Amino acid sequence: MNKKIKNVAIVGGTHGNEVTGVYLLRRWQENPDEIIRPSFITNLFFANPKAFSLNRRFVDKDLNRCFDKQTLERINSESYEVNRGILLNNLIGPKGQAKHDFIIDLHTSTTNCGAMIILLDDNVYNWRLAAYLSLKIPESKIHYIPPKNGEQPYLSSISPLSLTVEVGPIPQGLLRYDIFSLANLMVIETLNYVEMVNSNVDFNLPETISVFKFIEAVHFPRDENNIDAMIHESLQDRDYQPLTPGAPLFRMLNGEEIYYQGTKTVYPVFINEAAYYYNSIAMSLTTKEEIQIRSSNF
Amino acid sequence: MNKKIKNVAIVGGTHGNEVTGVYLLRRWQENPDEIIRPSFITNLFFANPKAFSLNRRFVDKDLNRCFDKQTLERINSESYEVNRGILLNNLIGPKGQAKHDFIIDLHTSTTNCGAMIILLDDNVYNWRLAAYLSLKIPESKIHYIPPKNGEQPYLSSISPLSLTVEVGPIPQGLLRYDIFSLANLMVIETLNYVEMVNSNVDFNLPETISVFKFIEAVHFPRDENNIDAMIHESLQDRDYQPLTPGAPLFRMLNGEEIYYQGTKTVYPVFINEAAYYYNSIAMSLTTKEEIQIRSSNF
Repeated sequence: MNKKIKNVAIVGGTHGNEVTGVYLLRRWQENPDEIIRPSFITNLFFANPKAFSLNRRFVDKDLNRCFDKQTLERINSESYEVNRGILLNNLIGPKGQAKHDFIIDLHTSTTNCGAMIILLDDNVYNWRLAAYLSLKIPESKIHYIPPKNGEQPYLSSISPLSLTVEVGPIPQGLLRYDIFSLANLMVIETLNYVEMVNSNVDFNLPETISVFKFIEAVHFPRDENNIDAMIHESLQDRDYQPLTPGAPLFRMLNGEEIYYQGTKTVYPVFINEAAYYYNSIAMSLTTKEEIQIRSSNF
Repeated sequence: MNKKIKNVAIVGGTHGNEVTGVYLLRRWQENPDEIIRPSFITNLFFANPKAFSLNRRFVDKDLNRCFDKQTLERINSESYEVNRGILLNNLIGPKGQAKHDFIIDLHTSTTNCGAMIILLDDNVYNWRLAAYLSLKIPESKIHYIPPKNGEQPYLSSISPLSLTVEVGPIPQGLLRYDIFSLANLMVIETLNYVEMVNSNVDFNLPETISVFKFIEAVHFPRDENNIDAMIHESLQDRDYQPLTPGAPLFRMLNGEEIYYQGTKTVYPVFINEAAYYYNSIAMSLTTKEEIQIRSSNF
């Protein structure tokens, strides 16, 4: 709890067509007072300038899946993003003994994610941050993605103390003031939290928080070549709401309905993310859990 | 008024990342009864398959700017879209004496355009169609783009009797059932209109319609390399609403406001279209005019 953070990394443009983070970096470069705090240093990183200039998520490979150990240890890769990931890991990390002890990675989504706080590591510092953000930004939601086979491929996994900011809905390649302001607020309040913890300032937090914990991805129905269904209209934009067994899931192009075959109520998030069409992912399913923020209980 | 249409062309995927039209073509290919009418033939055209497969608006050049005479007369072009435009002009047109006497071109927008009926030619057949669609789809809006120097570069200008369907808001590269259904309805009702006119069926129309007539594009403020402002939050999503002299137009990254310097009230459309960032276009300004549909008065 009393770990003192010395260096914070704020990363934007990890996905080149999620431009909000890139423009936030520019804002803070011109107005550094907004992100300067007395007790730690904040550094800004523009993660994928080449993909940004092409207005694409990535050039060769999703940069935000390049931070597992195996990828970081590759040599002589021809992938722009693998090399970029290794470079960023050297600058920000290295993973496991990172120079930056807290990382904020900025993303946007076409889904109705609102102010989504994505956590990748189950530790009290992160849960307390999420609880603090929940107080300051009441509409925010917490999405926990546990490691898979002990590994995380995401940029913010370079440090166990970290936050991925996901704001939406917003199209790719576009700025909106409301979304820009929301991401800005999430970062500012995160920096405020780090500063208060560093300075041993007391502040109140709720005893429990609701966490949407990732279970699995759901894929679109496909024909030979393409998806041939849409998110059902009763589910579109209903991120974080319960999906019950037998409820409509998809609407086929011809109008037919497909129903959820699971046996338990789940909570979909990332419903209809444009970036996931290339691998046919329609949404993520989560469980909704109340956790005590003083201890970790996953 | 009594012109009998023999062949209708429905075009989808003119912009490769506006995928709604492509999936509508697939729906109608599997369910042709929906678009078959007794008095004319309907043909479907998938305009830019290469851009669709890349999930990009275009490969080399915006295909929907390739239908002016000069571009259509080019030979030995290395541009995929110029060649594709020439091919489509041969299949659908040729412009000026088109085999298809009515054309519907399907588009989507990241802007709050709703059900936008874009007309490129000032003729009574088109105005009556727009009036008919306004009755059937009350939330629809009519956007007229007059020729520039006597020319139109848009696909649907292959025939003077034509309609560009623009639906939104929707991100690029994404399907939504509500937007898909709206575009489907606009096409179905257009085919119904053509069928009724062909068959000399009487139907009532309003005497006047409101038309948003294009004046000029407004560009984002820029620094040396990039835009450095956003659509002002009081203007975002307010397509078709009046913008008065002195009203806020942009919000700079640092929070400063920029105001509209014009001297007359105008009506912005295409406010914050992601596809226009590459040439820094922030919106189109229009005048709102009431026109008599029995005659042309522009």
